[in-house]
Order: sequence, then structure tokens, then C-alpha cells
Amino acid sequence: MSASEFESVEASLSKYISPGDLDEVRRILYGKQTRKLDFPQSATDAAAERGFDLQGCVFEASSEQLRLPRIVRVGLIQNKIVLPTDAPVLDQIAALHKRVGEIVEVAAMCGVNIVCFQEAWSKSNPSLLMNYIPNIPKGHQSRKCHFLAKKYNMVVVSPILERDEIHGGTLWNTAVVVSNSGKVLGKTRKNHIPRVGDFNESTYYMEGNTGHRVFQTQFGKIAVNICYGRHHPLNWFMYSMNGAEIIFNPSATVGELSEPMWPIEARNAAIANHCFTCAINRVGTEHFKNEFTSGDGRKAHHEFGHFYGSSYVAAPDGSRSPGLSRIRDGLLIAELDLNLTRQIGDQWNFKMTGRYEMYGEELTKAVQNDFKPNIIKE
Amino acid sequence: MSASEFESVEASLSKYISPGDLDEVRRILYGKQTRKLDFPQSATDAAAERGFDLQGCVFEASSEQLRLPRIVRVGLIQNKIVLPTDAPVLDQIAALHKRVGEIVEVAAMCGVNIVCFQEAWSKSNPSLLMNYIPNIPKGHQSRKCHFLAKKYNMVVVSPILERDEIHGGTLWNTAVVVSNSGKVLGKTRKNHIPRVGDFNESTYYMEGNTGHRVFQTQFGKIAVNICYGRHHPLNWFMYSMNGAEIIFNPSATVGELSEPMWPIEARNAAIANHCFTCAINRVGTEHFKNEFTSGDGRKAHHEFGHFYGSSYVAAPDGSRSPGLSRIRDGLLIAELDLNLTRQIGDQWNFKMTGRYEMYGEELTKAVQNDFKPNIIKE
Repeated sequence: MSASEFESVEASLSKYISPGDLDEVRRILYGKQTRKLDFPQSATDAAAERGFDLQGCVFEASSEQLRLPRIVRVGLIQNKIVLPTDAPVLDQIAALHKRVGEIVEVAAMCGVNIVCFQEAWSKSNPSLLMNYIPNIPKGHQSRKCHFLAKKYNMVVVSPILERDEIHGGTLWNTAVVVSNSGKVLGKTRKNHIPRVGDFNESTYYMEGNTGHRVFQTQFGKIAVNICYGRHHPLNWFMYSMNGAEIIFNPSATVGELSEPMWPIEARNAAIANHCFTCAINRVGTEHFKNEFTSGDGRKAHHEFGHFYGSSYVAAPDGSRSPGLSRIRDGLLIAELDLNLTRQIGDQWNFKMTGRYEMYGEELTKAVQNDFKPNIIKE
Repeated sequence: MSASEFESVEASLSKYISPGDLDEVRRILYGKQTRKLDFPQSATDAAAERGFDLQGCVFEASSEQLRLPRIVRVGLIQNKIVLPTDAPVLDQIAALHKRVGEIVEVAAMCGVNIVCFQEAWSKSNPSLLMNYIPNIPKGHQSRKCHFLAKKYNMVVVSPILERDEIHGGTLWNTAVVVSNSGKVLGKTRKNHIPRVGDFNESTYYMEGNTGHRVFQTQFGKIAVNICYGRHHPLNWFMYSMNGAEIIFNPSATVGELSEPMWPIEARNAAIANHCFTCAINRVGTEHFKNEFTSGDGRKAHHEFGHFYGSSYVAAPDGSRSPGLSRIRDGLLIAELDLNLTRQIGDQWNFKMTGRYEMYGEELTKAVQNDFKPNIIKE
């Protein structure tokens, strides 16, 4: 079976493992079992008709005496591109707007409060800009999001490529956070740019200069750690230090390169930082007319692998949702009780036991040119 | 099936999942498949006779033009206590020395270069000192290790409780690193002490003051991140910044509390830091004569759960070994080519793209009393 045909680990576990063992396997692999979230029939029908998977689950918290539950529904959208990568740019964008729009509509039917799209959702994969960096008309990418946000009373996290005319036309890999009022709450830029094989993105845009800002929405404090930033534990950590309760990780990554890391990194971040993390990966294989090489010994090629989807949500107690499919468009809706973040924090106390002053000092020393590693020799 | 009877996830996957799917499930869950390591018949026989599991695997690296492979065999030992927790202390220690000694002998037969025992291996679980903190005669805990190290030409990492008479009898949770010459190379102390439910260890010993030192052994640069320190990504990171190629994580942790986090944290550290990590957990259920409470609403109890073993090795490419059993004593031997650490580092470049100056600055600000989180409001 080829890697672009295999449905998902979850589907195989359910299909084969006997019920007695399955509970234990799931407990160890996925943590405390999430409850299945029910949807209105109209939403289920619309998803089926429009050809995408609709999955949902509930992460519960204990009830508290002095706080009401803080229930939020997040929606994670993973999708293939719609038109070929050599179709006219504005046609590609329009087709993606239409596709994502019809998924958002179903999210609204399911009561989603915050929706996040995949990295650079309105384009084919951003590391393959290759022959053109189109100058997308100002506002063209986000107008649709303002409209959706206001119409559905939903915060929209929209990862785009940003042309910064104020700074000499610099390109950034950016997420725009649109409030449910329809106004732009702000933007945040990708902090770490891959310099890895085909992901030669460092030739297209720069390391972000917006730090680790967190957005106070009506539905909780959120942050956006874009794609490759998920490999850097310090990046997740600093969003958390600024108060993020939910950190989105819109991504575009392929099988051979990163798939065994995918279930580990965002989940570790949820555990280590007492927060929820939402890992979103695009899906499908994108074909480029012009071939390209990566200086890694492989022949010139027109594709660079299968985007394996598998979007999921991880919780601070170490549990996680099942992933979306590896091969189809999908909408994953998770109902979170944000009270769980402080409850788990109060149990595990990582922030209190973190000794951050020590690390601040050690890190400051470690980046100096004359840093001497602390090595004990015989 | 109770949690103390279930063998392991790996055993269930092999038993039930059809071969076609099993390859994909394993690839996604365990990364690039490790090769099985063969052992001399005498070692296999001795392990069977002595009643512990013997497992082995090989992590391979690409061949290089200018460096020979740097092959190292590490041994991870997980074991139950031997005598009841209320037997005389010196009898308990002697029985554990004998048990661990016979496992180390098999490790030597298999060519192990560095062996690491579980946290506080010469005692019942350290967070349950409870009624006594015995004053173990100086040297009593490590004499055996010096002997083994020299006899077998093997580096021994021996996690103990240390009584520091020079500083007022302070107790530390410490790992002693004994060189293969039989001399003590140095010691390193547990940096983060749990303040979690039954793990009220903060009343027994203090946060370590030995920083993030790394030990240059004949078989590579190693560090020891003791138990609860695995929850702190900065802890792993700083060992790595000091040059660790292999980081051991000797632990003692129980099922309900941490089992779904276990496969995530040490493995994430291997990925994020381009190094090997070795996660070792004790095994079995320990019964204490005096009951104890944890202020968490549960009744007073004599046990605090099942130590689930499941020791494993993770590699910088995201792959990992199968785990040892959840219920039996075991010796896991992994053959590592340390060249893999730099090879993966050169591919993924996390150290180069880490922007550590920025984090040094942000962290230094974040620990100040007047720190203002970076929060954007509408």
C-alpha cells in the first residue's frame, strides 16, 4: 500500500484490534478517551455532499465551584488545492475561497467559535512558489475572512503570505486573526523558517518579527505557531508564557520527511505547556509543471511528496483527538473546556517547577561566541 | 484487562494488525524501522534463566567519507524491587545489587558500552521514603558500580539518593557516572522535583545545583535528565546545548498519572535536540506497610499505582525502538551510530534556526515580577 492511500492509524486500530486490547492500546496511545461530538443531521449531510470528512470530539474538564465551564468549539480545516498549480493565480484563489467557504459554512452549522485554516491556505504549497510570487491585490486574501467571521460570529485564523510594502516589499509567512466582530484583531508571523531540502522557504520570506503575541478573543486566548515552528519547543513555550490557552499550528508537511514526528510535537507542546494545541496539515499531492531540485542527490522532480493531513487536537492532560484522514479533505471540530488548562497546570505544576531564571541565564551564555559547553572529562 | 496485566502496545499491534497495514502503522507510530539486534545464545539463555526480557535493536546512520561510524551499544535496565519495602534496608539494597548485577552481566555478554539503571535503583520508589530516610553508608551504593564498570569495561550510570554531608546533610536525587575505567567521572543532580500528588518528593530532596553538565566518555558525550525533568523541554535542550549525544532519563512513574505522556516526551526531546534519548521506567507495583494520603480526595492507600516499565530508545530522526514490557523486568540494548545526530542536525537544522538570542531575551523578561504578557485585545 502506498503512503498516499493508507487511511489512518486510527482506522487500522479500530478495524483489527480486539475490543479488550483496544481500550488499553487507545489509552496508552491517545490518553483519556475523548467523547464523540454529535452534529446536526444537516451538517453531516452537507459534509457528505461536499465531499469532506466531518469529525468531532469533546475534551472534558472537572466542574469547579468558582468558575463556570469555559466551553469553546474549535474547527480545523484541511484541504487539497482545487485547481492545478499552473492555473491562473486568481482562479486558484477563487476556487480555494469557494472550497474553504463551504467547509466553514458547515463549521458554523456545528457551532464552531474559532476556525483555523492550513498554512498559506489560499495557495499551493508556499515552499514551491518557484516561478512566480504573485502580487496579490491588497485585502484580496482577507476580505473573505472578514465576511465569514462576522456572518458566523466566528474567530477566523487565516494563514497567508503577506507582502509588506512598507518594508520594501518584504514577504512574510503570516497568520491574520480576524475577530468574530469581523475586524482584524492582529497578525503574527512565522518565527522559524525551514532550511530543509525541498522546503527552501528561506529564499522566499523572512523570520517573523512579531515575537510571541497572543490574541485575546471572546473565546479564549489564542496564538499561532506556523508550520516549522512546531519543531522548536521554545517557540510553543513562549506563546504559553504570554498566556495562550490554545495554540494553532497551521502546517504544510509531507510524509517521508516528517510523518512520524507529527503526532509527537504538537502533543508534547500541549503537555509541556498546559494548553491545547491544534495541528493542521494540508492534504494531497501537488504537481508542479516546472521540475525542481533540492541538492540532496535526488533527480529533479515535479512533486515533493504526499501532504498527509492527519490534523488533530491535543490537550494538556496528554490526551488527543483521533486524527483526520491522511488522504481526504476534512473538518475536525473539538469542544474544549478551557478550564482544563489551569486544572492540569495545578496538578502538574510545570510552570512553577520550571526554574526559568536558570534557563534565562544559561541560554544567554550559550549564545555567546565564546560559550564553553559544560563538559566533564576524565 | 487491568493496566498491570496488559503486555504492551507493540505486542497488540503485532498480534492483530494485518501485515499490509502493519508496516504503515509502524512507520507512522515508530518511524523508520530499526533492525533487530542479534545476541549470543549464551546471553539469551541467561536472560531466560534469570527471568527478564532481552530485546535489542539497531539504529543505523549513513556512511560518511571523513568519519568512521561511531557505534555504541547502550543498555537500559528496568526491574521490580526484590524484597518487600519493609525488609531491612541493607537487605533490600543487597537484593537489588544482586538482581541488577546479574542483568548487567548479560549486558556485558552482549557488548554493551554504557548501561543505565532506573531512578533510585537501589531502593523502592524514592517518593515513598515516608518513614525513614536511611543513612546509607558512604560508598555503599556506588562501590558495586565501580567494580562492574571496570570488570566489564562499561560506563555505568547509577541513579541514587545522595546524602551531602558537606552541606548539612542535604539529600539530592543524583546520578553518578562511573567511567569504564572504574573511576567516578562525576555526578549530576535532578533539576526539577515533582510537586504532584503522591510524588511529594519536594519534601525529601532539593532541586539540583549541578546545572546541565555533560560527560565525555570513551563512547560519546552523555547526560542524565532524571525523571520529572523529562516534562521540561528546556532541561533536555540545555543538555543538548552542552553537547550531549545521548541523554538518559532514568524514571519511576505510574500508569494513571503519566502513561500516555511517556511515549511522547523523551521522543520529542530526541527530535527537537538532534540526539538519542533513553527513557527508563521501573516496573511493578510497590506495597507500603504504612498508608499514605496525597490530599487529592482519594482514600489513604498503600500503593500508588503500577510502574509500567515500557523503557525505550528514541533517535534524532524521529524513530524509536519498541518498548520493553509493561510488566516484567527487562534489558533493552540499542546499537547507535552517533553519526546520526549530526546527519539529522545537518538535514533539519533546528540548532541553526533556533533564534536562541531572541529566546534568551524573552525568557529573561518573562521571569521578572513586572512582566507584561504580550496580549493583543480588540
